Amino acid sequence: MPTFHTIKWVDPGLVSMIDQRVLPHQVVYNEYRDPAAVAQAIKDMVVRGAPAIGAAAAFGLALVPVHDTSDKMETVLADLKQASEILRQARPTAVNLSWAIDRILALVEERNFKSVAQLRDVVLGEAQKIALEDVEINYSLGSHAQSLILDGAVIFHHCNTGALAAVDYGTALGAIRIAHEKGKKIFVYLDETRPRLQGARLSAWELLQYGVPFKVVADGASGHYMRTEKIDLCIVGTDRVAANGDVANKIGTYNLAVVAHENKVPFYVAVPKSTIDMAAPSGDVIEIEERPAHEVTHVGNLQITPDNTPVGNPAFDITPAKYVTAFITEDGIVYPPYQENLAKLFQ
Amino acid sequence: MPTFHTIKWVDPGLVSMIDQRVLPHQVVYNEYRDPAAVAQAIKDMVVRGAPAIGAAAAFGLALVPVHDTSDKMETVLADLKQASEILRQARPTAVNLSWAIDRILALVEERNFKSVAQLRDVVLGEAQKIALEDVEINYSLGSHAQSLILDGAVIFHHCNTGALAAVDYGTALGAIRIAHEKGKKIFVYLDETRPRLQGARLSAWELLQYGVPFKVVADGASGHYMRTEKIDLCIVGTDRVAANGDVANKIGTYNLAVVAHENKVPFYVAVPKSTIDMAAPSGDVIEIEERPAHEVTHVGNLQITPDNTPVGNPAFDITPAKYVTAFITEDGIVYPPYQENLAKLFQ
Repeated sequence: MPTFHTIKWVDPGLVSMIDQRVLPHQVVYNEYRDPAAVAQAIKDMVVRGAPAIGAAAAFGLALVPVHDTSDKMETVLADLKQASEILRQARPTAVNLSWAIDRILALVEERNFKSVAQLRDVVLGEAQKIALEDVEINYSLGSHAQSLILDGAVIFHHCNTGALAAVDYGTALGAIRIAHEKGKKIFVYLDETRPRLQGARLSAWELLQYGVPFKVVADGASGHYMRTEKIDLCIVGTDRVAANGDVANKIGTYNLAVVAHENKVPFYVAVPKSTIDMAAPSGDVIEIEERPAHEVTHVGNLQITPDNTPVGNPAFDITPAKYVTAFITEDGIVYPPYQENLAKLFQ
Repeated sequence: MPTFHTIKWVDPGLVSMIDQRVLPHQVVYNEYRDPAAVAQAIKDMVVRGAPAIGAAAAFGLALVPVHDTSDKMETVLADLKQASEILRQARPTAVNLSWAIDRILALVEERNFKSVAQLRDVVLGEAQKIALEDVEINYSLGSHAQSLILDGAVIFHHCNTGALAAVDYGTALGAIRIAHEKGKKIFVYLDETRPRLQGARLSAWELLQYGVPFKVVADGASGHYMRTEKIDLCIVGTDRVAANGDVANKIGTYNLAVVAHENKVPFYVAVPKSTIDMAAPSGDVIEIEERPAHEVTHVGNLQITPDNTPVGNPAFDITPAKYVTAFITEDGIVYPPYQENLAKLFQ
């Protein structure tokens, strides 16, 4: 187990999150007692990664009945609805945010609560369950991945999809960590993942702690390594998978998938079922968040471009399903045809 | 004309170069009177870009007979040879370095000099000629490119290939500047080009001065824009083209070429004939320089990775000829088959 936590509930009513903006140079935990502050933390990327922001939203909602000064059920329920809307707006692309919120709201709506205390216990209980399940699901997903990660494997990875992107383990990097825990000799190429450098900062920090051998390389170098060295597979996470298998993930995923395809390197997407959005028929309907310009013009506080440089900063891209060799889920590995085989997961 | 110079000779015996390591935040000119210092400046990337380092090496050699304290021809010739070896080692991938050195050495060898003063005039004259020709060649190359850059074109560009990469104009960015000077309404996507950010720092700085509309985007975002927007063409420079049309260029070029190919976006390589190495049968024989780790672990003085993070930092990659739609040279546009049609340039 890592010595850090990405997100956890602190009794009687705080959400504690490691501040991923200052990693790897500082290990700082922020505590939140207000759902709007949690929403802002999601927006500012204190916490990021599809599973982690699902758990963050769930704990954010759990703060409402704990701290609500009213003891009127109606008021608390209205505050819960309001908080859910604020949280839902925090980031548009990852589906886990809405998934976790809807799961808690559905539970609230179907029950007839006798007291605010009961409501509080149920909401907090469900948030804790979401967090616990996340760890179990990730471990299960990572275990299924082992048939694809052989001893000696050289793996290309994008962004951060590890314990920092989840409650623990994470998705793609979790699978890599499990391979290492099982004693497989693996080597990982981490692309740095501009603009926010989640690969260079966060995945490197995690792999150093787990003792997994790796190298950080510039995003533009991925194809060079695939063309000139033995790379066995790529494995990435995702923020939303559409019903047809199109993948929304951190900007740069599409380039990586295309160069992998061109070099006949298998390209796997690790995805908990909660990240599959069967309501999205294809990637075309997934909103791509445009993030602030300073993420491109600056690294930390260091300005890299000239003053007044215009930038484009899409946070995600869509990788069409045809580039995906298989999806790795907690229920097993899903091969094409995706339209049909992803649907089977939910039957 | 830009208000800056990349490299120029200052009488009676100094090479002046803009320090590209501190652009765009500071505009500093360094002066060199020693060829070994010029070699170090090339190595440290005070000056970079294939045509510019060719001119830098030529002026570096011209320093020898100017400052040599000996008036013995033999000694000066030996010093010239020694300086040429130091300069040749400065960077292994770009062919212009050796090309410029060999051109001056050949001239020295075929002549019977009466005095060191005569030798000095001949070497300096040839270096000046190389610099002047560079501007003419680039302008000619950029003019030929105009048939490919139509009014309204949206262009993707990698690294810096402008006046800063040459004596003036440059190659790919020179073609873009000429299109703008001719009144064409164009728009340019500059990828930032990690690790040294030549796109974000240098090309952005140049285009702001010329008034060409552009946006800087992360390297990983190129495919996203090609997939979702109208991009008419990519145009890049090169550090060496092999006889079969394989292209050595700044790391990230191969990824860009592959995503362009996948999205049916024409991919053009702007190349002065001096950058074509007919002695290299294919890209496989071109040495790829591995540069220092701190270029990946740091941006400027800011450390981005955790301590003790291992990195890979290939400065260049090879783009196989099949991804190149055409080469743009000072003699015109060259289409496949490249083996045959590149050879024709030298007949």
